[in-house]
Formats: sequence, C-alpha cells, structure tokens
Amino acid sequence: MMSTKTLVLIRHGESIWNKENLFTGWTDVDLSANGVNEAREAGMQLKKLHYEFDICYTSYLKRAIHTLNNVLEQLDMEWLPVIKVWELNERHYGALQGLNKADTAAKYGEQQVKIWRRSFDVKPPLLDKDDERNPVWQKAYKNVDKNKLPLAESLKDTIARVVPYFLENIKPQLDNDKKVLIAAHGNSLRALVMYLENISEKDIVNLNLPTGVPLVYHLDDDFKILDKQFIGDAVVIAAKMQKVANQGKKLNNR
Amino acid sequence: MMSTKTLVLIRHGESIWNKENLFTGWTDVDLSANGVNEAREAGMQLKKLHYEFDICYTSYLKRAIHTLNNVLEQLDMEWLPVIKVWELNERHYGALQGLNKADTAAKYGEQQVKIWRRSFDVKPPLLDKDDERNPVWQKAYKNVDKNKLPLAESLKDTIARVVPYFLENIKPQLDNDKKVLIAAHGNSLRALVMYLENISEKDIVNLNLPTGVPLVYHLDDDFKILDKQFIGDAVVIAAKMQKVANQGKKLNNR
Repeated sequence: MMSTKTLVLIRHGESIWNKENLFTGWTDVDLSANGVNEAREAGMQLKKLHYEFDICYTSYLKRAIHTLNNVLEQLDMEWLPVIKVWELNERHYGALQGLNKADTAAKYGEQQVKIWRRSFDVKPPLLDKDDERNPVWQKAYKNVDKNKLPLAESLKDTIARVVPYFLENIKPQLDNDKKVLIAAHGNSLRALVMYLENISEKDIVNLNLPTGVPLVYHLDDDFKILDKQFIGDAVVIAAKMQKVANQGKKLNNR
Repeated sequence: MMSTKTLVLIRHGESIWNKENLFTGWTDVDLSANGVNEAREAGMQLKKLHYEFDICYTSYLKRAIHTLNNVLEQLDMEWLPVIKVWELNERHYGALQGLNKADTAAKYGEQQVKIWRRSFDVKPPLLDKDDERNPVWQKAYKNVDKNKLPLAESLKDTIARVVPYFLENIKPQLDNDKKVLIAAHGNSLRALVMYLENISEKDIVNLNLPTGVPLVYHLDDDFKILDKQFIGDAVVIAAKMQKVANQGKKLNNR
C-alpha cells in the first residue's frame, strides 16, 4: 500500500556568530535572542498546522539542539526521541573558524576566499593538528572514529558524511512511515536537499535555506517528492529568502 | 580489573504545581522560575567539580527534561545522548492529579489521604478509563504497550516499572563503565535509591530526596556503594532536606 512520508528540515536560527558575520563551522556558539525567537516561531507555526513527529535528529552543536528544543517546546512534544549525531554538524570551516570576512580577505586574498565560498570541492585551510579546536581533542567527539573527524571540509566532504548517515539511519525511519524532524545547519541540510531533489554540484552551492523556517517534504514510497513547502508567514519567509540570498553574495556557506 | 562506576541522580526542581501544592503525577507541568534556577545551580556545581557523563536518562515529563537540559547547558555538554523513557515518570497519582491537599481531604477524608500518602502499596483512586488524562489517550504514550499504562499507581507499582527498566537498560551502561546521569522525579528516584541501597518498603516511604541537588553514587563492579554524596553548597542542601522533610509531613509523594 502506498503511503505518504513526512520529512521536515529546519535550519537553526541566527547564532551569535552569524550576527557578527564570523565563520562558525564546528565552533559551538549559541543562538542569539533573535535565533531563539525564530525557533519558537517555527514551533508555533508547526503547532498551528497540527504537525506531529515520531523522531527527531540534530547535530552535536547547541545552536541546532536549542532550535530543536524550542520547536519541541512549542509543539508540547518534548517527550519525542531526539538523536544527536556529529554527522549532521555544519561544514567544518577549518582555520577560517572565528575569522570575519575582512580578516579572511586580508589574510588569504579576496579571490581565494571566493573559491572557498563558491566551490563544491575545495577545502578551506586546515586546522593545525595540535589546534585545540581539532575535534580529536574535544570531548564531544571522543567516541567518533578519529579517521572520520575533519580538520576542514569542502561542501563535498560535508555531503559525504551527511548523506550516508541519512541513508543508513534516517531513511529507514521514513521507510517505516515514521515522521521525521531534522534540526541542523545550512550545509548539512544542503546535503539532504541535494540528495532529495537530485540537485547538481553546480547548483547546490547557490542554494540557501532560510533560517528557522520549517521545510516540509511529503515523499512517496520511492522517495519521489509529492509536495514541498516552507511553513510560516509568506511575507516573513520571503524576507528571509532575500536575506540569505544577500548573505550569499557576501559570506556564503558558513 | 576493578573499576569505579559513576551514577548521578537529580530530582527535578520546583514545578508550577509543586508551588501550588497540587498532586502532579503524570500531569506535564513545567518548572517554575525557581525550579529552572535550581537546575542551573545543579549544573554549575557539577561543572565546578569537573563531572563528565557518557549518557543521560530522563522521563517523558518536561519538568525532568528541562532540568536535564539546564544541567547539560551549564556543563556545556548538550551533545550528550539523552534517552527519554516513560518508565522514569513520576508515580501516577490517578484521580488525585490536579487536586490540592484541602480538596483531597474534603473529597476523600483526612485518614484516607494519609493512607495514600504513607503506604507502600495502596493505589490512589483510579482515573476513569475515558478520562482524557488516561495515558492511553495521550500522544506521548502511543507507542507504549497499553497494558503497561496505569490509571493510578502505588509506590510499589512505580518501583515495579522503574527498577526493571534500570536493570535492563541503565545498569548495562554502568557495567560498561559509562558514566550515567538520570534526571527524574521524587518517586522514580526513590525506586532507584531503594534498589541501590537495599532500603525496606517500610523505610522507603519516608525517604525524600532534595530537589535539584545531584546525588552522586560511586559503585564497585558488584554495585556495592563505595561512596555517596549530595553535590552543592552544604547550607543550601541542608535547607532543602529540611524543606522536603516538612513537605513530607503535609503532602508527600507527589
């Protein structure tokens, strides 16, 4: 029997470093007050439309975890199981983490920065192995195979961890008709959208999801998209789409 | 080789209904502002002593989930896995849920209320099956075997679900030297303390854990207690112990 599968993606709201226009990557910065409000609003919108879920996924990073917590609080479904996985983390931005655009351009040159931002498969400069930000030194990643932990990632590298995790762990839930909510990051969600919508490497670098807006996919048994929509106030969503489009012109893929 | 196992229990901080002195049970009320502060303080105390954990457990009830979230936020370890299970819920207080002491005494008589509060194996009056508060009608419990869901519980009933869950799921983590943090409720934690300390049915009804104070057990390979301590400011803990002792004289086991 055919069934309709529900998958909802939400990109975390504004973080403290988004606000300051710094490369964040795996730096574990919190949501700004505005980011918390975005997450709450997303939860209220889902609640208003009577969305329900069976299982939720998020990354190891608190800006995504707090986004999910706020959505679940608004839905009054905090009892839902939440699986936190490093594979849904943001793209690792290597030695660029903590730099702003001006710093980055001054240090590496404007042209090089463009390449890192716009290319599909070029890694930013790697962290030094003994940098304390190297995930192998961090408690959160102590149980992860050290060979899998990056010192920097291209978008391609990010996709190469997100999509296999999705196929092995999340897709079986959807196959089993579980309704899935994923709260994650600009680039880890790009990976999923690329897979779901079969987007090319050339086009995916230009795709920017608005922050804090639930993106609902209904899929058939063969994972063909039956429909797809952003949830929320149309004017707010349009403004957010414009904002991420403008950011894309400046400091993309953070 | 012998190893020392670490198990930390924390009873949720003050809830909105604790404050109003209502029987709560499985009613999903939130922490009061004071309860949030208790949870944060607990997290700060654990952080100060450099506690680390591998896995966390909590109930389906938001007052316990929010307590855990606040502790993890203070520890800066929000990436830790959190398992939410209904088996760690508070004792189900049946038809008394939502009543205060005066209401309860007026409706059922002072003597009867004492029995419900002080006995080990007497259930409070059951919820009607068609009461919307019956867990079988509630979304949170939709995947739980309906035969296991209570309409009211004695302390004995609560223990009969908490201890088997602990033995089957949490003890193996400890056996595997994982450090475990459990955020739960007065009665579900009583069940664990009764098991760990081999307390009698007669004595367990008089044991009251202070709210929002981490209770640390170090155990040997045979689950013998090596040491046990409350974490926090001694004066604050003493005041909380006095408070729960006084509550016990009035409206125990909520």
